[in-house]
Amino acid sequence: MSEFVAVDVIRAKRDGHALSDAQIDWVVDAYTRGVVADEQMSALAMAILLRGMTPGEIARWTAAMIASGERLDLSSITRPTADKHSTGGVGDKITLPLTPLVAACGAAVPQLSGRGLGHTGGTLDKLESIPGWRATLGNDEFKRQLQDVGAVICAAGAGLAPADRKLYALRDVTGTVEAIPLIASSIMSKKIAEGTGALVLDVKVGSGAFMKDLAAARELASTMVQLGKDSGVTTVALLTDMNTPLGLAVGNAVEVAESLEVLAGGGPGDVVELTLALAREMLAAAGIDADPAKVLESGAAMDTWRAMIRAQGGDPDAPLPVARETEVLRAPVGGVVAAVDAYQIGLAAWRLGAGRARKEDPVSYGAGVLLRARPGDRVKAGDVLLELRADDADRIPAARDVAAAAFVIGEKSPTATNLLLDRIA
Amino acid sequence: MSEFVAVDVIRAKRDGHALSDAQIDWVVDAYTRGVVADEQMSALAMAILLRGMTPGEIARWTAAMIASGERLDLSSITRPTADKHSTGGVGDKITLPLTPLVAACGAAVPQLSGRGLGHTGGTLDKLESIPGWRATLGNDEFKRQLQDVGAVICAAGAGLAPADRKLYALRDVTGTVEAIPLIASSIMSKKIAEGTGALVLDVKVGSGAFMKDLAAARELASTMVQLGKDSGVTTVALLTDMNTPLGLAVGNAVEVAESLEVLAGGGPGDVVELTLALAREMLAAAGIDADPAKVLESGAAMDTWRAMIRAQGGDPDAPLPVARETEVLRAPVGGVVAAVDAYQIGLAAWRLGAGRARKEDPVSYGAGVLLRARPGDRVKAGDVLLELRADDADRIPAARDVAAAAFVIGEKSPTATNLLLDRIA
Repeated sequence: MSEFVAVDVIRAKRDGHALSDAQIDWVVDAYTRGVVADEQMSALAMAILLRGMTPGEIARWTAAMIASGERLDLSSITRPTADKHSTGGVGDKITLPLTPLVAACGAAVPQLSGRGLGHTGGTLDKLESIPGWRATLGNDEFKRQLQDVGAVICAAGAGLAPADRKLYALRDVTGTVEAIPLIASSIMSKKIAEGTGALVLDVKVGSGAFMKDLAAARELASTMVQLGKDSGVTTVALLTDMNTPLGLAVGNAVEVAESLEVLAGGGPGDVVELTLALAREMLAAAGIDADPAKVLESGAAMDTWRAMIRAQGGDPDAPLPVARETEVLRAPVGGVVAAVDAYQIGLAAWRLGAGRARKEDPVSYGAGVLLRARPGDRVKAGDVLLELRADDADRIPAARDVAAAAFVIGEKSPTATNLLLDRIA
Repeated sequence: MSEFVAVDVIRAKRDGHALSDAQIDWVVDAYTRGVVADEQMSALAMAILLRGMTPGEIARWTAAMIASGERLDLSSITRPTADKHSTGGVGDKITLPLTPLVAACGAAVPQLSGRGLGHTGGTLDKLESIPGWRATLGNDEFKRQLQDVGAVICAAGAGLAPADRKLYALRDVTGTVEAIPLIASSIMSKKIAEGTGALVLDVKVGSGAFMKDLAAARELASTMVQLGKDSGVTTVALLTDMNTPLGLAVGNAVEVAESLEVLAGGGPGDVVELTLALAREMLAAAGIDADPAKVLESGAAMDTWRAMIRAQGGDPDAPLPVARETEVLRAPVGGVVAAVDAYQIGLAAWRLGAGRARKEDPVSYGAGVLLRARPGDRVKAGDVLLELRADDADRIPAARDVAAAAFVIGEKSPTATNLLLDRIA
């Protein structure tokens, strides 16, 4: 396929033309092999961001990214497979209770997850706060656990969509992350290559999410749902609010602890609500008739959690790491909490050490934010609004400033907002 | 100035905002130092191409590129300085007769030129076909020749606008050449850093030019004229037709030979017309009252040419290289030549070996095209339309095909077109 020249492909997109199937196949493959240089792909990514892509181009681009690596074959798994993907939010620990819950209902859940970068945390970082737990599994180990336990949360292997791995790192440093065709194909290439039969997408909308407005989130959701269907994966998307953090805990070990509360039958209402809503969608998409609320109540989800953690070397009974330093933030005035901005809280947790600035940085497992007040709560001046936790006391002052800015305290109760904004199938 | 992050600058331009002076200064400097990576600059260049820049941004970008290197000081030159820049066309050898002509009229002409890449040739490649002539001069040598002979055509030193040198090479491989802000700042940063007092721009329009339409060429010309004026350089632009090659010779040695005809008082009418038009503009801009047509007729321009070539080690009397192989292309039918497409003729000369595909490739000095028929000429079937010359016979068939496609032979004479399309001052 050497008849193509990178500059011609870049120019075509730059000038607003649709790329041909052959151009897309060539450029994705040549980039993976290093024939198309990083500086050429970043110019193309910017042209895609500003010029867009047709549904046909996005489908082909996704297929080319899948073809750049291996495709898992889950046909040996006897239970129906169902997976979930969230576009990322603050306090979004839903994967932790959801995966064992859906498995306890009879599905096999192959959750290939990532690490956090920036103000939203990563599922693997959270689980790694459990002593002994390891994120990396071989393909055979992965399939065995999926069959035996029904639930696996692990790192995606390097063999899956290597083109996406390379392109994602490039987009991160070139201001080309926010292109819907590239976001959709990045997510869906990995999920389709992973071999799941059903997929539920949790597309976050709001200050703490990647997508700030509903229209863009809807476009992304529709694009991904169509890509899934075209590849034979039953795909549904929920659009959910991310203006306020999910639950009360934002960090790593603190989010594991909150997930355990949910699995034990308690936990914050919004975390339980979203876990059950996503579980219902996953079960329906996988064709399983079960009531996740009852299964949660029965304790079966907690049993699956323990088996899942143990299968990956973790000790579900070991105490979780606790940060060395704790400080509280108090309300400067009395009133009603009108808003707790998700982005600012995410940023505060990140500054406390829960997240990383560069992908090679370590994270602090005990660090994070624990909210003591939520929108609608009435507070007096001097009441504790949140706890800041860090291993390094020097990190607290800067985090404290952004956390304080997250709170809006007013006279009147805020109008109630729905967690579930829309459903696209 | 380490408060900036490359991604933020890229995002600002991507989202259609004007960059601040501080952002521009930082990103140009950081790119020159290698702190901003190639893949980041190419994404920014694509964003600039698609989003544009305000006149203020272009002026600041140009200033930042000048500041990336040295600035020549020509204050020791006792004659007024005047330079010319052409955006590049097929058969555009005008610099060769023009530089000694304007010098013979009393100006000092500091022509820093480049090599060819693609279908338009480079002035240095043409002059290097003269035995012994060398393109590289030190700054002191350059100024001495400028003072003594009045005419220098040489390679721009590496110290002049190094940011532009690096960015130009990047744009070439990333589909970001055609951005008016980047073209204008690239040309003007070098010309302003070179220290000329007056500048005449020859902006080519048509199939053989970089700008295919008059509106875009006008925008480029106005942008450059403004940049020149803002920097205290008297600047004028002529927009000239480049649908048909200039003159009859396209190549290296063949263009030197045609330039010598002009200096001897002969040569093709269009080459003479454009040389005199540009000379008049340069002299007027430099404040010199002289009639270039009379000076050309007097033989003084030829004397200056000989002195200029000799000063750089060349032998003005040595025979020029001749290609080993010659073939003719004959008219397939009789009629009137309606068009000779400049782009196709440029491509043919390039394929014959006159130009280079990569900047490290050598060029063939004898290779090129010699036209025997021009638009408006009446031809019979079998008449010679042009000669193809190459050192390597294998290059002829492919060149022959594109050269043949350049000719349109019809029934009626084409409507006369003007060489000079517009003047912007």
